[in-house]
Amino acid sequence: MTFALPAQDFRLCHANAAARIVIAVSPTETRMVMRALVYHGPGEKAWEDVPKPEVIADTDAIVRVDATTICGTDLHILKGDVPVVTDGRILGHEAVGTVESVGSGVKTVQAGDRVLVSCVSVCGTCRFCREGRSGQCLGGGGWILGYRIDGTQAEYVRVPFADNSTYPVPGGAADEDILMLADILPTGYEVGVLNGGVRPGDVVAVVGAGPVGLSAIMGASLFSPSHIVAVDLADSRLEAAKRFGADVVVNNGREDPLEVVRSLTGGLGADVAIEAVGVPATFELAVALSRPGGRIANIGVHGEPATLHLEEQWIRDITITTGLVDAYSTPTLLRLLASHHIDAGRFITHHFALDEIDEAYDVFARAADTGALKVVLSRAS
Amino acid sequence: MTFALPAQDFRLCHANAAARIVIAVSPTETRMVMRALVYHGPGEKAWEDVPKPEVIADTDAIVRVDATTICGTDLHILKGDVPVVTDGRILGHEAVGTVESVGSGVKTVQAGDRVLVSCVSVCGTCRFCREGRSGQCLGGGGWILGYRIDGTQAEYVRVPFADNSTYPVPGGAADEDILMLADILPTGYEVGVLNGGVRPGDVVAVVGAGPVGLSAIMGASLFSPSHIVAVDLADSRLEAAKRFGADVVVNNGREDPLEVVRSLTGGLGADVAIEAVGVPATFELAVALSRPGGRIANIGVHGEPATLHLEEQWIRDITITTGLVDAYSTPTLLRLLASHHIDAGRFITHHFALDEIDEAYDVFARAADTGALKVVLSRAS
Amino acid sequence: MTFALPAQDFRLCHANAAARIVIAVSPTETRMVMRALVYHGPGEKAWEDVPKPEVIADTDAIVRVDATTICGTDLHILKGDVPVVTDGRILGHEAVGTVESVGSGVKTVQAGDRVLVSCVSVCGTCRFCREGRSGQCLGGGGWILGYRIDGTQAEYVRVPFADNSTYPVPGGAADEDILMLADILPTGYEVGVLNGGVRPGDVVAVVGAGPVGLSAIMGASLFSPSHIVAVDLADSRLEAAKRFGADVVVNNGREDPLEVVRSLTGGLGADVAIEAVGVPATFELAVALSRPGGRIANIGVHGEPATLHLEEQWIRDITITTGLVDAYSTPTLLRLLASHHIDAGRFITHHFALDEIDEAYDVFARAADTGALKVVLSRAS
Amino acid sequence: MTFALPAQDFRLCHANAAARIVIAVSPTETRMVMRALVYHGPGEKAWEDVPKPEVIADTDAIVRVDATTICGTDLHILKGDVPVVTDGRILGHEAVGTVESVGSGVKTVQAGDRVLVSCVSVCGTCRFCREGRSGQCLGGGGWILGYRIDGTQAEYVRVPFADNSTYPVPGGAADEDILMLADILPTGYEVGVLNGGVRPGDVVAVVGAGPVGLSAIMGASLFSPSHIVAVDLADSRLEAAKRFGADVVVNNGREDPLEVVRSLTGGLGADVAIEAVGVPATFELAVALSRPGGRIANIGVHGEPATLHLEEQWIRDITITTGLVDAYSTPTLLRLLASHHIDAGRFITHHFALDEIDEAYDVFARAADTGALKVVLSRAS
Repeated sequence: MTFALPAQDFRLCHANAAARIVIAVSPTETRMVMRALVYHGPGEKAWEDVPKPEVIADTDAIVRVDATTICGTDLHILKGDVPVVTDGRILGHEAVGTVESVGSGVKTVQAGDRVLVSCVSVCGTCRFCREGRSGQCLGGGGWILGYRIDGTQAEYVRVPFADNSTYPVPGGAADEDILMLADILPTGYEVGVLNGGVRPGDVVAVVGAGPVGLSAIMGASLFSPSHIVAVDLADSRLEAAKRFGADVVVNNGREDPLEVVRSLTGGLGADVAIEAVGVPATFELAVALSRPGGRIANIGVHGEPATLHLEEQWIRDITITTGLVDAYSTPTLLRLLASHHIDAGRFITHHFALDEIDEAYDVFARAADTGALKVVLSRAS
Repeated sequence: MTFALPAQDFRLCHANAAARIVIAVSPTETRMVMRALVYHGPGEKAWEDVPKPEVIADTDAIVRVDATTICGTDLHILKGDVPVVTDGRILGHEAVGTVESVGSGVKTVQAGDRVLVSCVSVCGTCRFCREGRSGQCLGGGGWILGYRIDGTQAEYVRVPFADNSTYPVPGGAADEDILMLADILPTGYEVGVLNGGVRPGDVVAVVGAGPVGLSAIMGASLFSPSHIVAVDLADSRLEAAKRFGADVVVNNGREDPLEVVRSLTGGLGADVAIEAVGVPATFELAVALSRPGGRIANIGVHGEPATLHLEEQWIRDITITTGLVDAYSTPTLLRLLASHHIDAGRFITHHFALDEIDEAYDVFARAADTGALKVVLSRAS
Repeated sequence: MTFALPAQDFRLCHANAAARIVIAVSPTETRMVMRALVYHGPGEKAWEDVPKPEVIADTDAIVRVDATTICGTDLHILKGDVPVVTDGRILGHEAVGTVESVGSGVKTVQAGDRVLVSCVSVCGTCRFCREGRSGQCLGGGGWILGYRIDGTQAEYVRVPFADNSTYPVPGGAADEDILMLADILPTGYEVGVLNGGVRPGDVVAVVGAGPVGLSAIMGASLFSPSHIVAVDLADSRLEAAKRFGADVVVNNGREDPLEVVRSLTGGLGADVAIEAVGVPATFELAVALSRPGGRIANIGVHGEPATLHLEEQWIRDITITTGLVDAYSTPTLLRLLASHHIDAGRFITHHFALDEIDEAYDVFARAADTGALKVVLSRAS
Repeated sequence: MTFALPAQDFRLCHANAAARIVIAVSPTETRMVMRALVYHGPGEKAWEDVPKPEVIADTDAIVRVDATTICGTDLHILKGDVPVVTDGRILGHEAVGTVESVGSGVKTVQAGDRVLVSCVSVCGTCRFCREGRSGQCLGGGGWILGYRIDGTQAEYVRVPFADNSTYPVPGGAADEDILMLADILPTGYEVGVLNGGVRPGDVVAVVGAGPVGLSAIMGASLFSPSHIVAVDLADSRLEAAKRFGADVVVNNGREDPLEVVRSLTGGLGADVAIEAVGVPATFELAVALSRPGGRIANIGVHGEPATLHLEEQWIRDITITTGLVDAYSTPTLLRLLASHHIDAGRFITHHFALDEIDEAYDVFARAADTGALKVVLSRAS
C-alpha cells in the first residue's frame, strides 16, 4: 500500500493542476492524487500528496472523507509504539463520507451513499465475524484502517468489505455525531459497558475519564446504574465525567477511591469496574475496586504486564474481561442516537478543516491544556 | 469453640468409660467427649478427645460423621498457610453423616436423617445467598467448617444453617460417593466448568490433574467438549486424567502444551482453559493456552500474585474468572450421580477407619507416591 | 386462619375499651382485637374487628401496618374469581409497617424496625427460593398474603419468613414510595422488563396501560429503549403512559398498533412486546406485534386460554414468557429509588386513612372515572 | 428459475449424447442438461431432465451433488401444503457435493472443494445474519433451497452466498454422515436443545420421535440430562428413541406421559419439553409436561393454531420458544462429529442411487412401515 516516488516526478505531477490532478506511480502508470496524513516513522508525519486509492478487491468501496477525527491510538502510533505501522501508512480509522465507487461484489452500498466508516472491517465469513466478534476477524478484517492498510485521515479512503463495514448515515443526522460511532462510542459501550455487564441499580466505577472512559460513562448511563463513580487525576476530566453522567467523581491524587466506592456499597465494592487508561496501576485499581462477584472490564490499551493479585482474588468470584471493539453495536447506537438517548456531540470540543490536521493533532495531543476530547476534521464543502 | 483443659482432668474424664463418656469443660459443667482431629499450629495435629459439639444456634444440626475425607486445603492449613485457622480448631469440611439433634429453628432436617454436609454453609438470607453465591455469604456462612469453626474430621460436627447446608442422602446411594459432593465435585463443576462456560464441541485445557483438576475434567465431560487436554508434570496424574475423561494429555515437563493445543485448534487456542493448581506459572499458562474470545477459569488457591500479560491480552477478548465454590450445583450433581452421569467413586483410592486419620493424612500428603486422590475415612459400624 | 365467634361474645369483648381491646377466640382464650378488611364471599367485604395476629411460626414477624394499598388482584378476589380465597380472609398483599414482635427464629428483623412487606413470602430453603424464583416457593411461601393467609389490609399482619420477606425502609424514604415496591414495581420489572429482555435501543410495545403496564413502562425506561409504544383503549391511560415514559401511544380503538409498530421498525415488529392486561385478545396482539426473534413477556392474569398462532409463529424465532413476581429485584429497586432512577410516587393518585378503605376500594375500582392508579391507605399517626 | 420447453425440442437435445449434453432454453441459447426431481403441483413430481444450473450472482457456487436426502418438509411440499413452492421447482435442501464452479465474488470456496451444502443460505450482511439468526435472513438467504429457488435433489445445485452457506467436508469423514448436518442435526440441536436450554441433570421430555425428535434427543444427550423421556404413539419410533439416547419412553396411546414425567420429577414436571411433531395436541402436551420455570422448545412445523392455556400457565414462569434452524451450530456439530460425540450414521436407514429417488420417496413416506429415518441418495461414482 505504501509507495515511493522520486521527488522530482512527484512535483511535476502535482503541478499538473489542469482538469484532474494525477500522480505517476510508475513510469507507465499514473494515478490521481489526494492529500493525506502519512506516517513517516516515530514522531514524523506529513499532510502530503499521495495516490488516491482505487478499488483493489471487489468488495471495496472508495469513500470520500467528509469528516474524520483523531484517536488516542493515533498518538500511540505516532510515538512509534505500534511497530506494525510502518513508514508511508496513512493514519486514521474513523470517518463519515460519501461513497465514490464500489467494487463489483458490493451489494448494498453504491456511489453517492453517505456512510459511516467503522474502525472495524468485517469480512462477514470467518468464524469470528459469524459470531459477532469481528475485532478478531480471521478473513482480513478487524482493525486494519490506519494500521495494516491506509486509513481515513485523507481525502479518500479505500474501505474493504464495504457491505459489512459501512453504515448508511440516517437522514437528518449530523456527520460529526455519526462520526462518534466509528470508534469511541462502540468501544466504550461494547468493551466497557456490555463486557462489564452493567445492570440497573449497579454501582459502576470508571477508572480514567479520557474520551474512552467518558464513552463508557455515557454507555453505562443507558442501563441506569445507581451510581457512576469516575476516577481520574485531572479535575478537568472529572468535570467532563460529570457532564457525561458520572454522579460521583474522585481525584485519586487527593482522595482514596476505594474508600469512596466502599462507602457507596456498604463496604463491598463496585458491581462493575471499568479500566479506561491502559497502565498497570489503573488495572490493579479497577480490580481492587470491585466487589466479590464483581466484573472488571478492561478497555485500556496496555503496553506492559499488570499484577493480578490472585492471592486475594482467587476467592472473590471476580470476572475480568478484555477486548477490542467489534462494532456489533453500531446499529443499536445509531438507534440510540436517533432517539436522543446518547448525545454524541458531547464529545466534540474542536473543529478543523481537513488540511488543518497538524494543528488538530497538536490540540488533541495537548488535551490536558486544551480540554480536547474529540476533534472533528471536515472537508471544505 | 477452642478449649483448654488440664491434662489430668482430661484423663480422668476420658477414663470414665461407663455408660457415656463426659468431659469437664469448666469446674461446674461437663460435656460429652468425642475424638477429633485438632490442629495445634503449623505441622501439628492430633486425633484427641474434645467436647462433643452441641446446638448453639437454633438453626444448627449436630451430625454424627459416618464418612469424611481430606482436602488439599487441609494440607495447606496444616502447613500454617492459612492464619485464620488457629490452635485448637478441628479440621475438615466434608462429611456424610446421621443427624443426631437439631435446633428449634430447623424445619426440614430431623434426627435420624442421613445427610450430606456441604463444605459451604448457607445462611439463606444475605444478599449473596439470595443470589446463589453462598461462598460469599455475609450472614455467617460460606466456607466456615474446619476453618472458622470446628469441622468434620471428628466423630460429630455442628452444622450451622442446617436446612440450607445439608442434603438428604438418596436411598441406595453409597456414603462415599455422596461424600464427593461435599466439595471436590461442586468445586470443579462450578468454579471450573460453569464459570468457564464449557460448551459442546469446545476444546478445554485443564492445567493440573490433581483431584480438583480431575473434578473439572469429569464436570467438563458433561458438556461433550470435542477435546479435553490435561496438562501436568506427573505422568501418574495424566493417567488418572485419562480415566476421568481427558482424551489428550500433555506432560509439560517434556512437551509444549501450547503447541499441542494449537494443533488441535487451528492455531487459535483453547475455548476454555481451567487452572487447577494455584501457582503463578500455571495461571499464566492457562491464559496463554486460551484462544481469542476464550475463557480462563481459575480454581486454584493462590498464595502469591500472578502476572497478567495485558500487553498481549488487552486485545484478545478473554474472560478470566475466579471463585470459591457456592455449592448451588449440589442438587444437580445429586441427580447426575443418580443417573450415572458422574462416577464419584472414581476419585476414591483409599479407605481408612476414622481413627486411622494420621495414616490417611500421610497417604494423602504423599499423593505422588501413593496415587491418592480422595481417601475415605469411615466410622466403625 | 379464619375464625367464627358468636356475635354476642364479640360485642362484649369489643365493648371492653379499657386499656387494651381483646376478643374471645375460645371460651378459655382471648385475643387482642384489630380492624381489618375481611372477604365474605363474592362481592362481600367488611372493615371489621378481628383477632390481632400473633406469631405462629418462629420465623414470623407481626408488623403494624403503616401504609397499604389495593391491587387489581384484590378486585378479582372480591368478584369471586379466585376460589382459593374463602370467607373470612383478610385481603391485601402490600404494606409498609413497623415490626411489633418477631418469632424466636427471626435473625435480622426486630421490634421497632420499619419494613417493606413484600407480596412474596420467601421460605429461603426450597429449590425455587434457592434459585431466586420465590414466586414458585415450595416451602410455604410465594404469594400467600391476602390469598392463602390473612393479608395486609388491616392494622396488623403476620408476615411469615420475616428475614427473607421484609426489607428495611431506608432512612429518608417516604413510606408510600416504598409501598410501591411491595408488588407493582417488581411485577412490571421482573415479569415484564427482565423476562422480556429489554435492551438499549429496542422498540418495546406495552399492551395495556393500567398500573402494571405503567410499571413495565417505567421499568423498561431503565434500559433506554429507543421507543416505548403504549397500546390501550383509554386515552386517559395513554396520557398516563406518556408520563411514565412511553414516547408513542396508540389507542387501538382508533388506530392499528401493528401499523404503528411496523412503521417504527422497518416493518419488522417490536423487539419486545409486554402483555399487561390478561385477556386473549391482548396476548394475541402482543404476539402479533413482535418481530422475528422477538420476545413476548406476559404479565397479565388470565382467566381463559388464548390462541397461539403457531402456523405463523413456528418459523419466527419468538420467545414467550409468563411469570409471577418473585421479588428478587426488590434490593435493586430500592437502590434505584434511592438514586432517583425510578419515581415511585408517580403511581400514587389518591390518599386515604386506613378506615376509609371502603371508599378507597370504590375509587380504585372506578379507575376509568377516577383516574386512580395506586391508592395509599395510611394509619392515622 | 422454472422453464417450459416443447417436449420435442427436449428429446432432440437429450438425444445429443455426444461429448456434452445440452438443452435449448430459448431459440438462441442452449444449456447443459441434468436430472432433477421437479415438483409439478400437489402430489406430482418427476425425476426429469432440466437445464443444469449456472452461476447467476457472483457469490454463487455450482455444486455437483454427491449425496442428498429427503426431509419431512419435502413431503409437506409434495402434498401442496406449502404454496410458496410452485410447479417446476426442484426439491431438496440438503446435500454434500463437489464444487464445480464459483462466481467471481466467492473467496473461500473453489472448484474441486468437497462441501456440505447447508439448508440455510447466509447472506452474511443483513441484520439477522450479523446476529447469527440466518434463518430470518433479510438479504435473500434463509431457507430458500428447494423452496424459493431450485434445490438439491438433482445432479447439480446452485448455492447462493457460497462462502457462508457451505462448509468444507473434513478429510476422512463419510459423505453421508456430513449430510446429516445439512438440516436434521442443526435443527434438533438449535431449535430444540439450545432454545430449550438443556442443562446437565435436567429431565427433558421430547414429544415426537420422528427424525427431528431423534435429533433433539441426540443433541440433548450432549448436555448430560439426567433423563430423556421420549413420547410417541409408535413403538417402533420409541425403540429408535432408545437407540438415540432416551432412557424413558412413553407410548401415549397407552400411558399417561404426565404421570411418567411427574414421577421422575417429584411431581414438578420436565425442566425442558421439546415439541417435535407440529400439531396442536403435541404442543399442548409439551406445555403441560413442563415444570414451573420450565422451557418449551417448539421445533414442529405447524399448520394450525394451538391453544395456550394461559389461565393455568400465566403464573408458572414458563418460557416457550419457536424457531427455524439458523445453522450457526454447523461448525460445532462438525467438531462433535469428528470427536465421535455425535453418531450421525444412526439416522441413516436406507441407501439409494440418485436416480432411484422415486423409490426413496416412497420408502421415506411410508416410514411407519419401513422404519425409515433418513434415506441417503448417492451419485453413482
